[in-house]
Amino acid sequence: MQILEIATKGYSDIVEITSSVADIVSKSKIKNGLCHLFVIGSTASLTTCENDTNIFDDIREVLEEIVPYKKNWRHHKTWNDDNGAAHIRATILGPDLTIPVSNGQLILGTWQSIILIECDTRGRGRKIAVTIVPEVL
Amino acid sequence: MQILEIATKGYSDIVEITSSVADIVSKSKIKNGLCHLFVIGSTASLTTCENDTNIFDDIREVLEEIVPYKKNWRHHKTWNDDNGAAHIRATILGPDLTIPVSNGQLILGTWQSIILIECDTRGRGRKIAVTIVPEVL
Amino acid sequence: MQILEIATKGYSDIVEITSSVADIVSKSKIKNGLCHLFVIGSTASLTTCENDTNIFDDIREVLEEIVPYKKNWRHHKTWNDDNGAAHIRATILGPDLTIPVSNGQLILGTWQSIILIECDTRGRGRKIAVTIVPEVL
Repeated sequence: MQILEIATKGYSDIVEITSSVADIVSKSKIKNGLCHLFVIGSTASLTTCENDTNIFDDIREVLEEIVPYKKNWRHHKTWNDDNGAAHIRATILGPDLTIPVSNGQLILGTWQSIILIECDTRGRGRKIAVTIVPEVL
Repeated sequence: MQILEIATKGYSDIVEITSSVADIVSKSKIKNGLCHLFVIGSTASLTTCENDTNIFDDIREVLEEIVPYKKNWRHHKTWNDDNGAAHIRATILGPDLTIPVSNGQLILGTWQSIILIECDTRGRGRKIAVTIVPEVL
Repeated sequence: MQILEIATKGYSDIVEITSSVADIVSKSKIKNGLCHLFVIGSTASLTTCENDTNIFDDIREVLEEIVPYKKNWRHHKTWNDDNGAAHIRATILGPDLTIPVSNGQLILGTWQSIILIECDTRGRGRKIAVTIVPEVL
């Protein structure tokens, strides 16, 4: 397992991390198998998307309609903070993503990038655990 | 593969299962790799969240807005039952979760717990398949 | 890794692929482990659901309420096309799914099927990467 560190901004900043992950995969001894990514923490998520700032804005618009940041969430009473929406978004989107590895390369579509969605209301230093497991016994 | 059995209540009961999973991981021969969890059945989901009853209530509120239990879903005609929303919620949230294992321990954030969301309208005896795969050949 | 090819229709066509995946699993040398599925491309998703056309229609109704196809998404300006909703749906639902394998068989609930959701606005020839990794060293 290796840790990939990514700095984010708040309010559903979307950071494209494909080349950082591909670098780790290319240096691994495992040429065929799976690359598993897990963002450590309960207010961020990993998924795939085209690397396009327009679609990133569209995603933020949908998330804001479903789970608005300004709503008076019950969670705000737990810690007297403001990131209830962050927890809900991250729980629905999920913290993990697994991508196939073949001949030392990530298998992704032409327009398919790996993205980190920072759901929290402030910038964070995110740690993503990268684990590669082999296909063959 | 081992089966973890969890009793739930209906209507999006959220059950925190981190320590039960950590027990299985600590007894495994595999010290570094991935711990995969899969809830068997089509009306429950696995994800991560802070273990806070306030945020659990917030999550239920959002799910109820997006996919209300009382709506007259087409699926109710298939079996003459009442759990259409359960199927939709579970399909959107997904049945699986994979967490890294390092030195025999789950890698999770300080406030990040593993949760089972029981989407069904009645309590169930859930079976979660726990599979640990090794990182190194 | 093997590639499973599936032809789809547009506008959130849902295709049940359980038996196609089970065929690949049954021919694998790995009898116990994990079967990982990944849809290559940024406008489709994999998850599980009961194989029922009524619930498929219900899922499409919920997705259309959250992320309508006809909305004037910013992404349409990027390529002058019409599939912004497809990208958003696929990013929220996610491209990957992992299912346990025991004694050469997929572990699924009685009513739990593997489904491909074609989020794009036109039919596509989808490629799903199927990778099986072993449980035991």
